Amino acid sequence: MNTVDINCDMGESFGNYKCGLDSEIISYISSANIACGFHASDPLVMSESVKLAKKYGVSVGAHPGFPDLVGFGRRNMNVSDKELRSMVLYQIGALKAFCEAEGVSLTHVKPHGAMYNMAAKNEKMALAIAEAVCSADPSLILLGLSGSCLIDAAAKVGIKSASEVFADRAYDDDGSLVARSREGSMITDEDECVERVIGMVVSGEVKSINGNYVKVKADSICLHGDSRGAVAFAKKINEKLTLEGISILPMGTGLKVGKIVA
Amino acid sequence: MNTVDINCDMGESFGNYKCGLDSEIISYISSANIACGFHASDPLVMSESVKLAKKYGVSVGAHPGFPDLVGFGRRNMNVSDKELRSMVLYQIGALKAFCEAEGVSLTHVKPHGAMYNMAAKNEKMALAIAEAVCSADPSLILLGLSGSCLIDAAAKVGIKSASEVFADRAYDDDGSLVARSREGSMITDEDECVERVIGMVVSGEVKSINGNYVKVKADSICLHGDSRGAVAFAKKINEKLTLEGISILPMGTGLKVGKIVA
Amino acid sequence: MNTVDINCDMGESFGNYKCGLDSEIISYISSANIACGFHASDPLVMSESVKLAKKYGVSVGAHPGFPDLVGFGRRNMNVSDKELRSMVLYQIGALKAFCEAEGVSLTHVKPHGAMYNMAAKNEKMALAIAEAVCSADPSLILLGLSGSCLIDAAAKVGIKSASEVFADRAYDDDGSLVARSREGSMITDEDECVERVIGMVVSGEVKSINGNYVKVKADSICLHGDSRGAVAFAKKINEKLTLEGISILPMGTGLKVGKIVA
Amino acid sequence: MNTVDINCDMGESFGNYKCGLDSEIISYISSANIACGFHASDPLVMSESVKLAKKYGVSVGAHPGFPDLVGFGRRNMNVSDKELRSMVLYQIGALKAFCEAEGVSLTHVKPHGAMYNMAAKNEKMALAIAEAVCSADPSLILLGLSGSCLIDAAAKVGIKSASEVFADRAYDDDGSLVARSREGSMITDEDECVERVIGMVVSGEVKSINGNYVKVKADSICLHGDSRGAVAFAKKINEKLTLEGISILPMGTGLKVGKIVA
Repeated sequence: MNTVDINCDMGESFGNYKCGLDSEIISYISSANIACGFHASDPLVMSESVKLAKKYGVSVGAHPGFPDLVGFGRRNMNVSDKELRSMVLYQIGALKAFCEAEGVSLTHVKPHGAMYNMAAKNEKMALAIAEAVCSADPSLILLGLSGSCLIDAAAKVGIKSASEVFADRAYDDDGSLVARSREGSMITDEDECVERVIGMVVSGEVKSINGNYVKVKADSICLHGDSRGAVAFAKKINEKLTLEGISILPMGTGLKVGKIVA
Repeated sequence: MNTVDINCDMGESFGNYKCGLDSEIISYISSANIACGFHASDPLVMSESVKLAKKYGVSVGAHPGFPDLVGFGRRNMNVSDKELRSMVLYQIGALKAFCEAEGVSLTHVKPHGAMYNMAAKNEKMALAIAEAVCSADPSLILLGLSGSCLIDAAAKVGIKSASEVFADRAYDDDGSLVARSREGSMITDEDECVERVIGMVVSGEVKSINGNYVKVKADSICLHGDSRGAVAFAKKINEKLTLEGISILPMGTGLKVGKIVA
Repeated sequence: MNTVDINCDMGESFGNYKCGLDSEIISYISSANIACGFHASDPLVMSESVKLAKKYGVSVGAHPGFPDLVGFGRRNMNVSDKELRSMVLYQIGALKAFCEAEGVSLTHVKPHGAMYNMAAKNEKMALAIAEAVCSADPSLILLGLSGSCLIDAAAKVGIKSASEVFADRAYDDDGSLVARSREGSMITDEDECVERVIGMVVSGEVKSINGNYVKVKADSICLHGDSRGAVAFAKKINEKLTLEGISILPMGTGLKVGKIVA
Repeated sequence: MNTVDINCDMGESFGNYKCGLDSEIISYISSANIACGFHASDPLVMSESVKLAKKYGVSVGAHPGFPDLVGFGRRNMNVSDKELRSMVLYQIGALKAFCEAEGVSLTHVKPHGAMYNMAAKNEKMALAIAEAVCSADPSLILLGLSGSCLIDAAAKVGIKSASEVFADRAYDDDGSLVARSREGSMITDEDECVERVIGMVVSGEVKSINGNYVKVKADSICLHGDSRGAVAFAKKINEKLTLEGISILPMGTGLKVGKIVA
């Protein structure tokens, strides 16, 4: 039987600033990546976000980012490996405390924004992140882009990883995402998105922007919860997957998730 | 046999800014209160501070403060109980991650600066802090001013506490510290400081600014490491206590430390 | 002929976080208090906010707050007079640069949130703020609560002030605002709000919560732009004032605004 | 007669953190680049730094950096042109307010750290900075590396520029600085440093790392004030220049400083 996880970034509000339809999207996902106070969120928001995830039985992950609140963690920063390792460990620890206070397990870690994108292609950064995850708790799952350096780094360090795919992004022949700046990088037709996702989960393949079939590993599908449209799409994809007989299981519970490297 | 802990704030550097003679004072103390990135410190400094404490066999405590880096956490802030609880839990979690990465136990929590002073006299704030400590780990020790609301709050919540005394501060008849603004609030003679500390540890009493003997609980002595003079004084007091047959034991190991309230 | 200014806080977005219906409320006000990056806003938002105010011919004011982004500047902070003076001067200067870049005059300064409320009742804080305003530019108008320490401090320092009144708040017999925590502190009926405002502008009086008429100085009316309802109310009050023959003039242009103390 | 300016970064303390021997180095320089609160400094430090510069008759410049306090503005950040322009304008405005409060002219702007280095080689960034400077005040001088994009951008925008040289850095054949990572990039012999500086001022040439003479423009010499040794070297170079009959004139007063592009 096919299973897959659906993950979504959550808990990105900050003080007086509200962001994301967390209490709506939560119904259609199985894993939440919760911001940790560097690129978004604050301690009170983190506390409430963990409680929300607990209430809905959704797996909790730490979503560490660069210390760039005004840039929402989306701007590349040239940090040293030591700095990166410690800023990731710090953020994981902070979120873990809220999980432990609620009696909830922290299951995974997914780097945010520029940190995610840089580490996807940068072996040293990916390794620093994987080491931070391992030092926080070797049973944590590192969630990264299918085929990226993050997945390799998890294997190298000896922790589990989960590979994620995107419903609305075009893929290149090497399995990487087509840059947003290129024509055709975004799949705008919702039905096509759904079809592609089901294909990725069931067959482990997706048609590239050049029309070739490329292998992807779809342990988890990355969705968004920042608009009404995004929530509606999450509902749709959740329902279609279920109709296809694909079980949506929280991170860490699905058989296909991760691999242990001895 | 008499025992006592000596605690000192540490790890207060931040990025390019160096602060405190950590690698010198560490030789004369038994417990380190490590800043957690709100009033001082950053993830890299925290990582190094935990390693230093581990190397010297010193107990590690979290030293959470207000989110006021420019004010070094010394300015009173009017935060809600919910905000206080979550900012303390956040900081404890962050430091705990570095401890776990190094295989070191986090033994205690001591609020910093304005948070410490406000909570010493404010029952609700003290309770919020004690609840945060308990929710992070009920075996943690809350380190606070002898006779303060923090000690009471720990008892109320059911966690251990340790009472600290100051070598260089005058006490009032009710066991509280004489405000720094008042004449005679600081004891400037080093030998007198030493004598007072020994008295507090051995007899549980100290002569107040009015000449009366008042009860204090001296589980731990608070020292400073921010100047050559402070380090020299730490060395002196450490030696004198040892000469008096008082064992200096890290937080959590001494028999007199803490009390469990069932 | 009666004239009055209508002021509203603006430019409170921050990075990815949107806040306030600035482009809608701008049509119904005559003066904008633009956040300066401490309690809200960032340089890019400030740039855009000044451009928006310029486009609509609205007077621009600096809206300095405490360095407390996560608390939105609403939490009391115990800062020294020197710190207060320099943080206000800093924020005025930053906003003034955007005004000068756009060829727009900076006309006034209104402290934000906790800084506004504390300074309303604290002479020393009010003086520090007035001194900062004067040192930035002695022709600036200090906008504060009618009858508050801020108005007195402006007079003392020798700068102009403008007194503001609130449409939806109850007043005490001494002309101060009734604390929000007290029953009846908010006027919820919109027509009553409008009537009270017109009364304050025309007769310089308002009926207190105890039924007595108290004097207020209504150079400016403080409105909000953070919700649909607030914008609709702004439109209504703007129209009603005009119907009553009261001219809505930007800060600094109305004859009743400010007084010069030689 | 030959003239040159000597500039130094100043005012980099932050809250409780002290940094730099400002009150000592000030005697040997003619222009101060004062940090503006993003990579270092705070409003109170800025206020005191401007007063110090005023007292010693030293030209005041704004020293804007990336919003990266923990990284001291030394980490490359991928900011948009719009963000860069507004963050530079913001910081200039903030410092200018302190200058105006003291009756001191703001004479120049020198970007800090990673912003300086990135803009030296990136035309678009250099242009965004020059535009910000111009929009703040078209009479400001943009201080940048001799031969860098910053100097070109100033010309393009139509503001004055001043070219700076380094006493202790090796130059490549194209007039650029040899990367610190390369062998021989630092000139460690003080007498050689002095000789090179005099040569650059007098003849407009310096011997490259490959032994060739390359042209440089030495309107200003960049020194450091962060250590005893740096201060002693500043004293030495100041004295030697004077002995050679070279006048040390504050930024903006020397005939050789800047060029106006009509």
